[in-house]
Amino acid sequence: MLRDEGMWTFDNPPTHLLKKYYGFTPSRAWLNKVRLAALRFNDGGSGSFVSKTGLVLTNHHVGMGQLHKLSTKRRNLVRDGFLAKSQRAELHCPDLEVNQLVGIDNVTRQVVGSLRGLSAKKANTLRKAAIAKIEQTASKKTGLRCDVVELYQGGEYWLYRYKKHTDVRLVQAPEATTAFFGGDNDNFCYPRWAMDFTFFRVYENGKPVRPKHYLPLYAPGAKEGDLTFVIGHPGSTDRLLTTAQLRYQRDIAMPKRLKMYDVRRISLEAFAQKSNEHRRRAQDYRFDIENAIKVVTGEYEALRDSPVLPLKEREEKEFKKKAGKFAKGAWDRIERLNKTLEKKNLALTFRRISGYHLPGFAHTIQRLVVEVEKPNEKRLEEYRESGLDSLKHQLFSPAPWYKDLEEHMLAAGLLESLNHLGPRDAFIKAALQGKSPEAVAKAAITKTRIGDPAFRKELVAGGSKAVAASKDPLILLTRRVDKILRDQRKWFEDKIESVERIEGDRIAKARFKIFGKKIYPDATFTLRFAYGRPLGYAWDKTFVPYKTTFNGLFDRAESFDHKPPWNLPKKVLRAKKKLDLDIPINFVSTHDITGGNSGSPVIDRKARLVGLIFDGNIQSMASSYSYSLENARAVSVHAGGILEALKSIYGAHALIAELKRS
Amino acid sequence: MLRDEGMWTFDNPPTHLLKKYYGFTPSRAWLNKVRLAALRFNDGGSGSFVSKTGLVLTNHHVGMGQLHKLSTKRRNLVRDGFLAKSQRAELHCPDLEVNQLVGIDNVTRQVVGSLRGLSAKKANTLRKAAIAKIEQTASKKTGLRCDVVELYQGGEYWLYRYKKHTDVRLVQAPEATTAFFGGDNDNFCYPRWAMDFTFFRVYENGKPVRPKHYLPLYAPGAKEGDLTFVIGHPGSTDRLLTTAQLRYQRDIAMPKRLKMYDVRRISLEAFAQKSNEHRRRAQDYRFDIENAIKVVTGEYEALRDSPVLPLKEREEKEFKKKAGKFAKGAWDRIERLNKTLEKKNLALTFRRISGYHLPGFAHTIQRLVVEVEKPNEKRLEEYRESGLDSLKHQLFSPAPWYKDLEEHMLAAGLLESLNHLGPRDAFIKAALQGKSPEAVAKAAITKTRIGDPAFRKELVAGGSKAVAASKDPLILLTRRVDKILRDQRKWFEDKIESVERIEGDRIAKARFKIFGKKIYPDATFTLRFAYGRPLGYAWDKTFVPYKTTFNGLFDRAESFDHKPPWNLPKKVLRAKKKLDLDIPINFVSTHDITGGNSGSPVIDRKARLVGLIFDGNIQSMASSYSYSLENARAVSVHAGGILEALKSIYGAHALIAELKRS
Repeated sequence: MLRDEGMWTFDNPPTHLLKKYYGFTPSRAWLNKVRLAALRFNDGGSGSFVSKTGLVLTNHHVGMGQLHKLSTKRRNLVRDGFLAKSQRAELHCPDLEVNQLVGIDNVTRQVVGSLRGLSAKKANTLRKAAIAKIEQTASKKTGLRCDVVELYQGGEYWLYRYKKHTDVRLVQAPEATTAFFGGDNDNFCYPRWAMDFTFFRVYENGKPVRPKHYLPLYAPGAKEGDLTFVIGHPGSTDRLLTTAQLRYQRDIAMPKRLKMYDVRRISLEAFAQKSNEHRRRAQDYRFDIENAIKVVTGEYEALRDSPVLPLKEREEKEFKKKAGKFAKGAWDRIERLNKTLEKKNLALTFRRISGYHLPGFAHTIQRLVVEVEKPNEKRLEEYRESGLDSLKHQLFSPAPWYKDLEEHMLAAGLLESLNHLGPRDAFIKAALQGKSPEAVAKAAITKTRIGDPAFRKELVAGGSKAVAASKDPLILLTRRVDKILRDQRKWFEDKIESVERIEGDRIAKARFKIFGKKIYPDATFTLRFAYGRPLGYAWDKTFVPYKTTFNGLFDRAESFDHKPPWNLPKKVLRAKKKLDLDIPINFVSTHDITGGNSGSPVIDRKARLVGLIFDGNIQSMASSYSYSLENARAVSVHAGGILEALKSIYGAHALIAELKRS
Repeated sequence: MLRDEGMWTFDNPPTHLLKKYYGFTPSRAWLNKVRLAALRFNDGGSGSFVSKTGLVLTNHHVGMGQLHKLSTKRRNLVRDGFLAKSQRAELHCPDLEVNQLVGIDNVTRQVVGSLRGLSAKKANTLRKAAIAKIEQTASKKTGLRCDVVELYQGGEYWLYRYKKHTDVRLVQAPEATTAFFGGDNDNFCYPRWAMDFTFFRVYENGKPVRPKHYLPLYAPGAKEGDLTFVIGHPGSTDRLLTTAQLRYQRDIAMPKRLKMYDVRRISLEAFAQKSNEHRRRAQDYRFDIENAIKVVTGEYEALRDSPVLPLKEREEKEFKKKAGKFAKGAWDRIERLNKTLEKKNLALTFRRISGYHLPGFAHTIQRLVVEVEKPNEKRLEEYRESGLDSLKHQLFSPAPWYKDLEEHMLAAGLLESLNHLGPRDAFIKAALQGKSPEAVAKAAITKTRIGDPAFRKELVAGGSKAVAASKDPLILLTRRVDKILRDQRKWFEDKIESVERIEGDRIAKARFKIFGKKIYPDATFTLRFAYGRPLGYAWDKTFVPYKTTFNGLFDRAESFDHKPPWNLPKKVLRAKKKLDLDIPINFVSTHDITGGNSGSPVIDRKARLVGLIFDGNIQSMASSYSYSLENARAVSVHAGGILEALKSIYGAHALIAELKRS
């Protein structure tokens, strides 16, 4: 375990390390406070309460989906930004849900206590049923969203209880060029000068919520070396995978995925080039794809070229030796899955209804109406009672969709599947019925009513009968392929997942036996606690400073002669004289984070918000597999930079007053 | 040959490439003008006339040796910079000589025409004698400094005639922190914000010279992609070496050299830590050593880790095939030298009188008085008539030396030699006579009078008899080892150099046969012509802009909390409000340059000075072996940045007026 390493769960904070390295011991009250101030953005990100009036701070790129959905051809919030002139002018987000973690309980025994001795397949089925039951019982009792979270590759199961907030409104957002200065090029790069922040406000019963705990912005920020914390929701890491699983990722899964992303990127680019309005419609999707390409490429290169995998192989060998009879054979049984997976890889990757939003809606409705008629513990996981409200919140979103983009991407996706699977594949036959991908996409999208939320509600209300009777062309398409996809999923759960869980559990138990619980689990998009400090690093034969300032924003824009994506809106250029240029914009720190941490607060010992995580540097790409202190860094927006931008660029005086009153 | 590649000689400018890529054909008058405006700084660097009043622009780091020599404990020009209030206040440089190339002639036939069929050793001796004779004759006839320059590894010999300028005075210099912002850390790094410029003025007969040709500063500079030229003196490249020679560099010579530099660096650091005055005395030497470490490390890594050497091996193989009977066996004969060299490597590297200035002076005097009594063509090359004036200009420099530093570095050098050679080595025995390095250094330095220029003159005037009779302890030391070092040098010339020349000549002839003269020779610290353009590049998953601005200077200083070496003098910090921050400071371009090009003017088609070369980026380190267009770049100070700094930081209005009048 390196200094500053770890995405710790709140049941197991690294108190011994905090004491050893920083002489700091967080109190129970401190931990509760910061946990309750933290929020999860359910479509992938983090945030926190930052005022007693329910203001929430997150990244612009976390809020961007909502900005996109709130935009029209006339009102481009992504391009132009937004500032509500009053509370009444705040914009209701169509399908945003944020969660607040109010309690956790260890339910490992209830989940896996009685599975010993069963076959992998049988154990997996019972495990899922047990989880469904625990969730449903807790949910009924508390009225909260209750998720059972699997930690340590199946070594522990915890019940996480969330308070849901679905009335969330947009308060402020900078222009995309300011928030995402340098665009996809500078994404994951540092030094950086991005004002990647956005303010929302949570409402309850039509009024701003008054959270008991929040993290006030602290303009001076933190100095280099100061102990600070990140409270947020890292999405997913692969640190506890076996090296066989990593080799499968590197050799089979990732190259395929990168190819798939690249096809989507090119399709989107072709669409965007048609007009400015096309470009606007595709922007959010393009951002996601370009981001994913940079992430997966970085991870792929880390597995292929860096010493990460050889190091892990050595560690695994030593661990196996120490483990002795514990978990004996588990690694081999996991490794044997690779051959099975490899054979099915094409089908697993390319048998899918791709596209953008509408085909997914149709497919969800298709399954939802069938699943909810089954007992809770027999359903596909995503249709269990506990998550249904959140699912419907998304499914019934009033956000606008664009049929041209939907058709374009559905056709591209079907074409790609056809190219990889060939015309004789069962999925292709069912999906295309001998027609071309373009023709199928056109037929499915042109006349579908799935874009209308009222129609979606009507279908769901009608239940399985209504959906079975529907002649909506998009429903027809998803109906044709659903059985094939369900069979494939069943195969995966029985043959692969079941073995991974049971052997993963064995390895986890061996790990606990040897190391105790002085370890942390892989990220699971649940609340974690990271500690560390702002710190520069050595790179390319010189040093990279721990922070950047407004001076540098103007340097980089001017250095590229203001060519996009290094252009700045007039509002920012005009503000140059007013801005205190020496105020920091971004900084880097040693905190152990990953995707999903976007929008996490960086706080000091006094639980003041000194920064806002928005990225990791290029060197941190290997952190999916292992933490590095040498030059991997988290990248944050500086609290002082946020306040200075609000003041000198946006004149958001009421907002500043609210933040300061807090 | 890549676009923008080449350090071309003025007899062979790349007119076909200029036409092809840029549609530009320089006239003979244009070429003469820029050649005569260019200057060589003999202690290693380039410069140019920039006004009709004899102003010369070069880098601060090229002028730094003179700044150091003009400084005392009370007057620290390196730290504080300098601006002459009037012409009368300009400071006479103690030992600076700048050269202006007034003519060149091909003398290949005279040098090697009659050597065919002779043994390598014999040919080498006659070759040297022929060169000495040509130089002496030309020098007598013209009164100029006349050097025979060996090009293409011995394939051509040219007589270069220089006008010497030795009355050179300091006009202006920024503070070292400003000129060398970011220090050794940022050296060779980009983006960069260094104001690495200094103005001198050349005098003749006590009056400012009025050069016929000069290059006026052009504040708007050049845009990205604009055709521009670098006229300067690249020091040395190894592009035409055989791969066997490069492998010897990589495996034997460079690791040794790096160790040696490191010992010197540590010795200097230990000395500098004693007090601020110690630090000041050591600063110039430290700059040189740290610079050398970064260069040689970069070159070493290029040979060890980059594809440079494998590519060269493939090229060489193809070239050999094409060459057929031409130069058959030449490569093998050169390769066989490696074993011989390897055996002698320790002696060749560590049998030397190191130290700083004084031991070198003593040794030079020792040899000078003996050599000048021989006929010109029998002398060691560096004592030939043609170069004697320049040598004496340096040798009799009135600059101050510091015995504490001299003793410290002499002891460190002797200790290192002892460590590598062992106590029974003949050189060590002669140098130390059984005493410790410290004792020998102390005895040699404490009472020596070599630090006094009058004493040095007296010794030289007295000739070999006076020197042989001298009891000066430093003379005694160098006298004890001189024979051993002469024998070693003779061995090297007879066994190694002679073979390298004769086989190099064969390979060069084969190259001309195959490629014609559409190639350029390796750098030889003689005047060259490079063409190219300002151009950014891709790096670390994003793009690096082609220029930087004053905004970024303040960003980087602030980002490091003004910690040295990213601190700025008060004068600069105070000027921030007055400065136009969007004016460029530095820019990168594709010109093919190397060490020695420092201070070279970057000019546009109209021969206006748009920039001042001062560095190459890290990626250009491999350019000792081959040119790369991908991301290797020359780094320059921007002409507009120089003028803005003179105006808004230094208030150098008279100087600006002079530059503008021109």
